[in-house]
Parts: sequence; C-alpha cells; structure tokens
Amino acid sequence: MAWIFHRSPQLWSAVRHLSPHRTISFTPTTRLPPADLHGLFLTWRSGQSEASCRKLHSGAGMSEPSPAAAPERLPFSQVTQEDLVFFKKILPGRTITDPDLLESSNVDWLKTVRGSSEVLLRPQTTEEVSQILSYCNSRNLAVNPQGGNTGLVGGSVPVYDEIILSTALMNNILTFDRISGILTCQAGCVLENLSLYLEERDYIMPLDLGAKGSCHIGGNVATNAGGLRLLRYGSLRGTVLGLEVVLADGRVLDCLATLRKDNTGYDLKQLFIGSEGTLGFITAVSILCPRKPKSVNVIFLGCETFEQLLQTFQLCRGMLGEILSAFEFLDSECMRLLVTHLKLPNPITETSGSDPTHDQQKLHNFLEEAMASSLVSDGTVATEDSKIKTLWSMRERVTEALTHEGFTYKYDISLPVERIYQLVTDMRTHLGGRAKSVVGYGHVGDGNLHLNITSPAKDPALLAAIEPFIYEWTASCQGSISAEHGLGLKKRNYIYYSKPSQAVALMGNIKAMLDPKGILNPYKTLPDKLK
Amino acid sequence: MAWIFHRSPQLWSAVRHLSPHRTISFTPTTRLPPADLHGLFLTWRSGQSEASCRKLHSGAGMSEPSPAAAPERLPFSQVTQEDLVFFKKILPGRTITDPDLLESSNVDWLKTVRGSSEVLLRPQTTEEVSQILSYCNSRNLAVNPQGGNTGLVGGSVPVYDEIILSTALMNNILTFDRISGILTCQAGCVLENLSLYLEERDYIMPLDLGAKGSCHIGGNVATNAGGLRLLRYGSLRGTVLGLEVVLADGRVLDCLATLRKDNTGYDLKQLFIGSEGTLGFITAVSILCPRKPKSVNVIFLGCETFEQLLQTFQLCRGMLGEILSAFEFLDSECMRLLVTHLKLPNPITETSGSDPTHDQQKLHNFLEEAMASSLVSDGTVATEDSKIKTLWSMRERVTEALTHEGFTYKYDISLPVERIYQLVTDMRTHLGGRAKSVVGYGHVGDGNLHLNITSPAKDPALLAAIEPFIYEWTASCQGSISAEHGLGLKKRNYIYYSKPSQAVALMGNIKAMLDPKGILNPYKTLPDKLK
Repeated sequence: MAWIFHRSPQLWSAVRHLSPHRTISFTPTTRLPPADLHGLFLTWRSGQSEASCRKLHSGAGMSEPSPAAAPERLPFSQVTQEDLVFFKKILPGRTITDPDLLESSNVDWLKTVRGSSEVLLRPQTTEEVSQILSYCNSRNLAVNPQGGNTGLVGGSVPVYDEIILSTALMNNILTFDRISGILTCQAGCVLENLSLYLEERDYIMPLDLGAKGSCHIGGNVATNAGGLRLLRYGSLRGTVLGLEVVLADGRVLDCLATLRKDNTGYDLKQLFIGSEGTLGFITAVSILCPRKPKSVNVIFLGCETFEQLLQTFQLCRGMLGEILSAFEFLDSECMRLLVTHLKLPNPITETSGSDPTHDQQKLHNFLEEAMASSLVSDGTVATEDSKIKTLWSMRERVTEALTHEGFTYKYDISLPVERIYQLVTDMRTHLGGRAKSVVGYGHVGDGNLHLNITSPAKDPALLAAIEPFIYEWTASCQGSISAEHGLGLKKRNYIYYSKPSQAVALMGNIKAMLDPKGILNPYKTLPDKLK
Repeated sequence: MAWIFHRSPQLWSAVRHLSPHRTISFTPTTRLPPADLHGLFLTWRSGQSEASCRKLHSGAGMSEPSPAAAPERLPFSQVTQEDLVFFKKILPGRTITDPDLLESSNVDWLKTVRGSSEVLLRPQTTEEVSQILSYCNSRNLAVNPQGGNTGLVGGSVPVYDEIILSTALMNNILTFDRISGILTCQAGCVLENLSLYLEERDYIMPLDLGAKGSCHIGGNVATNAGGLRLLRYGSLRGTVLGLEVVLADGRVLDCLATLRKDNTGYDLKQLFIGSEGTLGFITAVSILCPRKPKSVNVIFLGCETFEQLLQTFQLCRGMLGEILSAFEFLDSECMRLLVTHLKLPNPITETSGSDPTHDQQKLHNFLEEAMASSLVSDGTVATEDSKIKTLWSMRERVTEALTHEGFTYKYDISLPVERIYQLVTDMRTHLGGRAKSVVGYGHVGDGNLHLNITSPAKDPALLAAIEPFIYEWTASCQGSISAEHGLGLKKRNYIYYSKPSQAVALMGNIKAMLDPKGILNPYKTLPDKLK
C-alpha cells in the first residue's frame, strides 16, 4: 500500500469544522514524540562505523575503485604554521585546530565520508571571507565551504586536508520588508530560525526540509535544496532574488538585489545556486517569502496501488487546485519501517469535524470522490497545528527509521511522475533477496523519488547490483540521477547519466573561469575527467 | 486617481453569483473593440518617422552621443556572394535577400531602431541553425537572433548589417505531457498559439503579455519576459525546465530536460534565460505549465491616491491570498489617454450577481472592507470571459494609446513597491511643463513601474532632462533600470546604475567564454566599455 501526504493551506480550518452528518471519517493523529532533528542526526551518526567511512563505495572484492570513491589528492599546498598565524590574525579565537572540535566538521552526517582537515575557520563577515579566500588562492590552499553539514552526497566535508570555511557564525538577519516579504540574511542563518522569525511576522520561508533545524540557508542555496514546499512555491531559482558571493580569489560579487524583477544583464546569481560551493562562497542571501497561509491542513491517505495514488494526485490537483502545497508519498515498506523501528503507531483512527463552510466542501468533495471511486482506502486529516507537525514528522523521520536497518544506500531520482514507482518495483525484482529492504518515498508532485536500499552492513556485492543499474534505468527515462541532493563527492562521476558531454565540458569551462586554481570544494560536483 | 487591475482565478464564478442583497455595486464592462495586437503594432509603427530612427537618442544640440546610441561597427566580415551560396544551399527558399521582405525585420516595432541587414535566414531545424552558426563563426560574420521582434530596447533588430537569424519557421510543438503539464516546443512558437493549444488541454502558459500575438517563446525566454502572470506563477527562471541552445560556434547544447527537479551540475540553461541572444541561439524550450484555473475574475478598482492603492494591495493579498494572480495599476493620466485617444468609455456602471457561495463571500468581504475603509472609491467586476478580455485589453492597449501622443520615452523600472509611484510624481515635478504627459502603469505586485513620458515629437532637451535623472533616482533606491524589457541596444550602457562593475566584468568573461569572436547579437546587453 502506498501512502500520500498533502499539505493544503486554506483547508485546516475547513476540516476542523467538517459537517458531522457527512459520512467520511476523519482521524486525529496519535501524538508522536516531538521530532528533535538535531538529536536525530546525532543518533544517525552514532549508528555508523567510522572505520568504514574512508573508502567510500570501494569495498573489498572489487578490482576497480567505485566512481564514488575519492580521487587522488590534488597538488594543493598544505597548511603551514605561517598560514595559521595569518588566519588567527584575521579570525582571533575563530581559527579552530583542536581535533576534537574539528571532528564533527570532518564527517558528514550520514557518516559515510570523512576528511582530515586540520583547520576550521569561522568568519563573521564577508570581508573576513574575502581576506581568507584571497590568501588561500594566492597560497594554493584548498577550501571546503561548509554550512550546516547536512548534505547527503559528501559535498559538505573535506575529502583530504581542505581548510573548512564555515558559515556558522554568519547568522545575522540583515533586513526584512513586511510589505514585499523580502528577507536578506547572512548565509549561516539556520533555516528553522528564519522560519520562526518569519512566522512571527506572518510570513514563511518558501522552502522547508527535514534538516531545517541544522541546515544553513547559504547551504540550501548552494545545493539548490528542494524540500517539501517546492510544489507550491517553486524552486530557489525563482525565490532567491539576490546573493552576495565571495569568489575564489577573494573578490566580492554583490548581486544582493531585493527586487522581484531585474533584467539588467546576465543573472549571475544563478551560477552559484546549486553549484555546491565549487564556484564561490555564498555570504548573504535575499529571498522572497510567501505570506503565512491562514490555514493549513494535512491529509494522510492510503491507496492500494501506486496507480491509484497517481489517480488520486490527478484528482487532487483538479479539485484542490491552488491550495495544494505538497503531495508526498511513502510506500508500505516505508510505513513498515516507521512502525517497526520508531514504534510509530498506525495513525488512522476516527473523528469528525463540525460547522461546514465552502472550503470544507471543497476538501470534502475531494475526499468523498476519492473514496467513492475506490482510489483511497483509508484516510487521516490533521487539523491542529501540533497534529499537523506530528503527521509531518512521520514523513521527516523516514531517514531515521532507515538507520535502524543497518546500512542504507540512498538515491534521489527525478523521473516523469508516472514512472517513479516503477523504479522501486523493478529494483525489488532486480535485487531479489539481496537487500534487506527496498523503500520508496518522496515528492510525487515534483516527480522526485527517494529510493533507499538497506542491508545489515555495507555490502559491495549489493552495491554492484544496484549501480549502475539504477543510473542506467534513470537515464533510459531521461531522468535525473540527482533531483535535489546534488552530486557532491559521491555522485560526481555519474553526471554523464543525466547531462551530455557538451554540457559537462561547459561546466568545466565555467569552473576554470571562476576558480582557475580549483581551490573551492575540490573533488566535488564535476567529474574527475571531462569527456 | 490610480486604477488597479487584479486577476483572480477562482473568483469568477463567485462574483457572477454575488448576493443581490449586498450593497456593493458590480458593473458589467462596456464592450470595447477586440484587441488586435498585431494590428496594434502596425499602427504604432506607422506613427513614427523612419528618418528619426538611425541616431537613437542622439539629437541635435548634444555634443556627446547618447549612451543609447549605436557604437561604431565592429570589424566583422561582410556577407559575400559565396556566403549567400552557402546559406541558400542550407536553406533553399528560406534565405531572404529581398529588401522589401527584410524591411520588417530590420526595424523594431517601436520604430526607434533600424538596422541594414541584407540577409534574413529562416531555419526550420536545430541542425540548420548549427550549420549556419558554425559557418558564420568561422567567417566572422555577425548574427542577430530574432523572434517575434516585439522587444522594446532595440535588442531584436540588427544595428548594422548583421545577418538576421529568425525563429519564425521553428514553430512546432514537440511534446506535451498531460499529467505533468510539461510542454516542449521549438523556439519560434508564438506565445498565443501555445496558449490556445494548452487551453484546449486544460492548461495555460505560465506567462502572458501584451505582445502575445506576435512574440515567440524563444524570445520570451531569451529576454526573461515577465508580463501579467509573474505574480502568480513566478518567473521563467523557475518555470523553464529545459533549453536547447546552439552556441556561437555551432555546438548544440542539449539541456532540454523535462524534469521539475534536476541538481546534476550547474544549471547552464539559466545563462541563456535573459541573455538576449548574446550567448547562444535558443532552438527549443521545455516549460512547466499550470492547470487552467476553473474560474477567473477581474476587478477594476479606483483609488484616490497611490497610498490607498498600496493599502488595497496589502488588504487584497491578505484576504484573497493564493487566488490573487495579478495586481496591475494604471494612473489617472493613463486612464485619461485611454479615454481621449481610444475613445474607451469609463467602464464603470452597475450590476449585481446572485447565488452566494463561500468564494463569493471571500471576494465580497474584500470589496466590502476596501470600500468601507474608503480605500476604494469605485469598482467594476468582470465575470464573463469576453468581458474579462475586454477589461484586460484596456491594460494591454495603454501602449497604443500612448502612440497617439506623438513620441514616447519608455522606461521599465523595478523598485521597492512602496516607492514605485513616487518616481512618477517626482518626474512630473522635475519636468514641469516640458513633457506632454508623464504616465505611470505597471505590475504593482512585482514592484515594476512602466513610466512613459510623451512629447509631440522627439525632443533631445526633454530626453536630457529625463536621463540620467531617472537612472540616478532608481539607483538611489537600489532599483533596476530594466525590470523586464532587458538592456538590448538602448540601455546597455546604463547597466552600471543597477550592477556593480565586478558583476559586469564577470558577464564580460562569460560572453568571451561562450562567444569569443562576439558574433552573437553584438552591441547589445553588455556595455561598450567594461570598467
């Protein structure tokens, strides 16, 4: 059975008051433990073996190193005592060399990639970033830009001894315009903090994702994060209005416009959105924020098949129209893991609302039709804020549930929406009994599947069965091998499955133009060899 | 008095049935002549003196040439008989050299810029474009990409003898996916044709603009056109999912993805959106199209002051929320010109609806509150499709009405929304009696003012009073001197009012990387001299 999540602003109050004489049953969600996302990440980290991190995807028994494995170290300089003296002069008390303090910045939160950086720099201002990069560029020192270190493709941690340049102390909100809803802030603001700040002012951030308690807005922009609100508010390429970026040589590029429209020359900021810190270091962001919806409603529905789920999606788009803001799904394997590992009860029980209104009618009509046509076999509607959060936390805690299975191979695939679940079933057939679980969930509305394959421990034979099968399957449908996670270290060499060599070559030209020495986030995003 | 237009999907049916016992009066629109946009453009053209076109903005009595004037011709090759033989071999019957047939492609539709190209090429396929550009690049022949030639900044016509490379015969729809709403088509499809095609399939284009009857989707993308739906559906940077582009040397760059999300490497297509044909020739587009709204309603309101209009906008955003799709305004000068020159009657008379529903209530509540608080002094609601089109045609015919005044100096400014009308009043004060009319209209929701200044004929002294005053005023508010029209030939040298020199230098680097010989749309977008 496949499960669907919608988030529908404007419907919350509607559902709360649904007429008691209607026949559809609505269900209060059972309270779950509050999602402490930071705690969640720590739990995740502690569940992995550190020793297994170094040789990423290059297990014993394979003659060729995996395309995901780190390439040889490039001939960058090594940090000297003189360098440290310079950094400490620029950043007194914020030049970190204590290995214990560096530990969490050297390892990604999936604990699958580990670097060996000996310096963590924590600038507070753009000018400091500029001085540091200018120095590093002249000294040929490699730099790893780092935000909240919540990336999933090994893009946010050093591969070798790159200097870690963190946005953690660049966390000031600069301006907020209550009329236009345009926010400008430093790159290190934590997404959830921005959300809280805006909600007090009757606005919301145009993006939301599970890592919101840790991720930085600069990192979100650098990775072109998608998340849970993309269906409604569009991608960061439309909502980010301006960026301030420090280039590899320390030049400050001020594109921090706060205008909805600006057609004066090439839109340079787009180069940095989604380039994963390889073209510049984002220091500040301006972003267009939508008004806080007056009502939000979450519906959680059960469908017997993915085909029914797709039909429900079509019905939903037609009947809910502009109030539909997200359409997520979890498959039954996913539900099983949530129930098994997190002791999350099946949340479907029964209640009913009261006080019909026209908005209620719209939702009611949709649910009635969905059930009458047998598309949906079960449903829950959350109407209160706490219950909505609880229901969403189920969606957000899938990753956590997966960690309990042992080792997870994670994929983030973009496909024509009608194909997304076929990949899950084909993978199950293809792997047979080799995987512990093959789990699919994701953003139906965006055609974005998160496919996760678990095994008790790392399993090179299993990996060899998954890849390149999954990439070839995706390429055969003109899909993307990374819908929203980026390429980072892990997927850089798979880029040709989704991009033609002409395009990749041009990306290489852009990299060479903006960062001729290649000091910014080396070994990431672009493949080791250009075809 | 300032006038506001909204376009509100979901409200049409609501308004049609407004309760007769409510006290607000609603007004059927008086039928206006149907807007024949193509005819409109021709009328415009015939109203201008061709002889005045050559020395753009460089009238007698000014010692320095205007920054808008054409620079010296660059040392490109000239088209030879051998070149024509080659073109005719590639494009038999589609290599146009007849001066009469070339005429309309050499002059922009404002009739303010005239080139002297002797060759118009009309390819049908990407491969043909590739062969032509490869040849032109090797021969150092300059090329002027041209779509519907509806641009307003002299970007779409040759400055000297550049070869005109037209998308006119590249007008095939390639695919349309009814589930996802993703359309792929060749670059020469006329926007209105795409709209009609989609409306039959229950979808719409995410953009709409006055020139829709002539403009090509490739040109829309190349200029990052804004238009009337941006408030609701966002910019082309979010809705364009893929592009196929032929680079200056003839290489074909296939980024024609049809995926909502794709984070595999740098988003190269963004380079070409808004670059006005200076970086590549767009041959095909894929674009995400929204569902056709089930109901559309247009309200036309009168406010005594711009401050009241802004308050109405805020009220409207709060009370109409996600159903608001456009918020346009015309000032009273604009209304006067429409009435005077186009004999458009003041459309406000009285009627009322019936059958209240909840959606009606929402609109009703907004109008009631707007009127009760004296923000709005008058109002018209169009409920039927033909009347909606009539009301919108008023907005779209402002440009036509302006032509009747003589010569128009046109500006397209982006500002913080609360400042947009101050520029109009400051300009009126600044110019005193020198201008015939100073007219403001535009997209309030986007902070985009169209400021138009008319005089009986071209008037260098008036121009000298307008510029650089208007650009300095805009720069002092961190505004943009081109919100949606682009820079083209006319505004290329004003780029520094909106972009820092570091950014413009980087644009120059990008141009040099993609088009090292500078053959693509020379003299456009980038300034003559990089600082």
